[in-house]
Amino acid sequence: MRTLMVELGERSYPIYIGSGLLNDLGSYLQKHGITTKNSLLLVTDDNIAPLYLEKTLHTLQQSGYRVVTSIVNAGEKAKSLSVFENVMTAAIEGGLDRNSAVLALGGGVVGDLAGFVAASYMRGIRFVQIPTTILAHDSSVGGKVAVNHPLAKNMIGAFHQPVMVLYDVDTLQTLPMREVKAGYSEMIKHGLIWDEAFAEWCLNQAESLLALNREDLAYGLERGCAIKAAVVSEDERENGLRAILNLGHTIGHAIEAVGGYGEFLHGEAISIGMMGSALLAVKRGRDQSIYTRTKQLFGRFGLPTSLPKHLDTEALIHALLHDKKFKDNKIVFVLPVAIGKVDIVTDITLDEVREVIEQLKEEA
Amino acid sequence: MRTLMVELGERSYPIYIGSGLLNDLGSYLQKHGITTKNSLLLVTDDNIAPLYLEKTLHTLQQSGYRVVTSIVNAGEKAKSLSVFENVMTAAIEGGLDRNSAVLALGGGVVGDLAGFVAASYMRGIRFVQIPTTILAHDSSVGGKVAVNHPLAKNMIGAFHQPVMVLYDVDTLQTLPMREVKAGYSEMIKHGLIWDEAFAEWCLNQAESLLALNREDLAYGLERGCAIKAAVVSEDERENGLRAILNLGHTIGHAIEAVGGYGEFLHGEAISIGMMGSALLAVKRGRDQSIYTRTKQLFGRFGLPTSLPKHLDTEALIHALLHDKKFKDNKIVFVLPVAIGKVDIVTDITLDEVREVIEQLKEEA
Ligand SMILES: NC(=O)c1ccc[n+]([C@@H]2O[C@H](COP(=O)([O-])OP(=O)(O)OC[C@H]3O[C@@H](n4cnc5c(N)ncnc54)[C@H](O)[C@@H]3O)[C@@H](O)[C@H]2O)c1
Ligand SMILES: NC(=O)c1ccc[n+]([C@@H]2O[C@H](COP(=O)([O-])OP(=O)(O)OC[C@H]3O[C@@H](n4cnc5c(N)ncnc54)[C@H](O)[C@@H]3O)[C@@H](O)[C@H]2O)c1
Ligand SMILES: [Zn+2]
Ligand SMILES: [Zn+2]
Repeated sequence: MRTLMVELGERSYPIYIGSGLLNDLGSYLQKHGITTKNSLLLVTDDNIAPLYLEKTLHTLQQSGYRVVTSIVNAGEKAKSLSVFENVMTAAIEGGLDRNSAVLALGGGVVGDLAGFVAASYMRGIRFVQIPTTILAHDSSVGGKVAVNHPLAKNMIGAFHQPVMVLYDVDTLQTLPMREVKAGYSEMIKHGLIWDEAFAEWCLNQAESLLALNREDLAYGLERGCAIKAAVVSEDERENGLRAILNLGHTIGHAIEAVGGYGEFLHGEAISIGMMGSALLAVKRGRDQSIYTRTKQLFGRFGLPTSLPKHLDTEALIHALLHDKKFKDNKIVFVLPVAIGKVDIVTDITLDEVREVIEQLKEEA
Repeated sequence: MRTLMVELGERSYPIYIGSGLLNDLGSYLQKHGITTKNSLLLVTDDNIAPLYLEKTLHTLQQSGYRVVTSIVNAGEKAKSLSVFENVMTAAIEGGLDRNSAVLALGGGVVGDLAGFVAASYMRGIRFVQIPTTILAHDSSVGGKVAVNHPLAKNMIGAFHQPVMVLYDVDTLQTLPMREVKAGYSEMIKHGLIWDEAFAEWCLNQAESLLALNREDLAYGLERGCAIKAAVVSEDERENGLRAILNLGHTIGHAIEAVGGYGEFLHGEAISIGMMGSALLAVKRGRDQSIYTRTKQLFGRFGLPTSLPKHLDTEALIHALLHDKKFKDNKIVFVLPVAIGKVDIVTDITLDEVREVIEQLKEEA
């Protein structure tokens, strides 16, 4: 079992990563001051419920906890204010009070939704993350919780740190392969922005990681979480450094939007987005190897590295213009300086982005 | 002009109280780092808009601000998630970003709603309160913001402190008399929990206060805010002391609920609730003068001091049982020790409450 601390002063919390941890959920809760006097709300989705809900409830009840359950529809649509209100109803009807805690059993969707419930129920109660996707190694660190507004993603939310994260790698074995790959996209990103050796390790262990080898998986999750934690510890509220976590996300978000949030998974979209950032870096005179090595990495994980031709360039540009990072016809971009290092470039023009989009399509 | 600081470490903020302050809104914003580069969202209701919106927008535009306006229906119903989503829509369509600010022009309803928008828009942007009711001297101090859930009041919210409060006493001149009286109920409460001399002053100045004499009004608001600020400074997140602000609210909330949130204004309900607390105190052997003096105070302000007979006792008890302060058949109550001092009694029984409710009805 691996333990990693996210250092945030009095809001610091541990991430436990290992095999079979879910069986000991009760004792982990106790250890963190959530006693059987405190009622719990467990939020999960209807893909995860048939797989892990019974087991989880059984463990909790054996430890003597009173648990209310709220099962939402799987998928990004659950991150809406109306589902949020339904989960709140379950919390109120279940009699949760200020000493209660909300448990998120699931991927980033359940984590973000349940986290915002925890942040705002009676103005804030305790929150525990039990991630069940690889991508959630990213979303479970940093305390960003949110739901979407019909007009924009993650628009309504809070910063609310969990009291602990319990990552049972066994649960990852049932992930659909496409979700596995998409999850690795954020892991690779953590290598690309911070740690060349980790990026290399990902490349070399790609087969083992894709086969969900528990040892490598646990190490990769730990290192990914550690990098994110290091960034977040320095800049909890995204006033500066934290922006580097957005590598590939400006173009990535545009791809998700133009694809109607159905065609591409988030991890897939940002994989293409990171290819775009690499191209922009090369255009700005940085080493050509940035591009080739990035492409090799994503390729090895079966992640997309080019743009399907049917995506309209102007639609992508239009979506980009909706992005908050746009100003005076210039866009702020996180760009690789080398593998394992990025900086922030504030004067990328729309024309440069247009060229890169066209280039990404030619690769297809 | 009176200035009062709410001391909350790095979240400290001033309350400006005086006549004509709204005309200088722009310079107050500037002073607090909200520049004309930052777009603003102004939230108000449809009673206040015809009276003060044009003037406010004019001032802001003269100072060079870009302002988006969101006008909600007047009344408690605006504190719902669906109205919250509409205000969010206005914010997004208006292009608000992380450097923007939300301005609440109105009473406690607008303040609570707009405050929760500010707390959660892009995970939190700046917030300015411009209270236009007397009651809002209470709601604008302390950073509690919230909307209601159909099942329970103020259930969904946050702690989000404003950067400043601008209290223009001129706006209070248009308040309906019933709202004036109800607003004084919380002001008197601040005397009852903390400051006998202030309670006495309220009693002596009742006529002048009800006539909205600007001098006395400004002093009363300042002293009310100061008492609330003193309590909140010691206990921002309601872990202890802050509970004394709930004097009269346990019975008061039950009265509001049984009256269907239409029959009684909040200030009226807690006025009866404080009479109940006084009766309970006397029942527990405290001085009879607590009751008579409390009654004299509320009576002088034309506030109700007894319960209409048609309110069903068991319905009130049932509503009380929904209260979060109930445990092991005992209820936690804030009770007066003397005028100007309260303590917290944890073992009030349902039977005692029942008797007090009956007594409050006999007084009618
Ligand atoms: N808060 C943050 O900092 C942050 C960071 C990155 C992403 N996110 C958010 O995370 C979300 C994406 O997260 P995600 O990729 O985990 O999506 P997800 O939660 O939708 O999970 C992906 C799919 O896998 C299913 N699933 C989950 N666990 C499973 C398991 N163990 N076995 C079988 N199926 C399983 C889910 O039901 C879903 O269909 C997005 O909404 C994104 O905005 C948040
Ligand atoms: N956040 C807190 O700490 C806190 C504390 C106390 C009360 N509250 C909340 O405050 C709300 C009650 O506040 P309120 O009494 O100010 O109610 P309100 O905001 O509904 O205002 C009362 C009425 O007066 C009207 N009005 C407001 N200003 C006016 C003016 N200048 N001229 C003419 N009409 C005007 C409004 O349109 C409304 O009809 C409740 O929702 C309560 O929960 C919050
Ligand atoms: Zn991402
Ligand atoms: Zn009140």
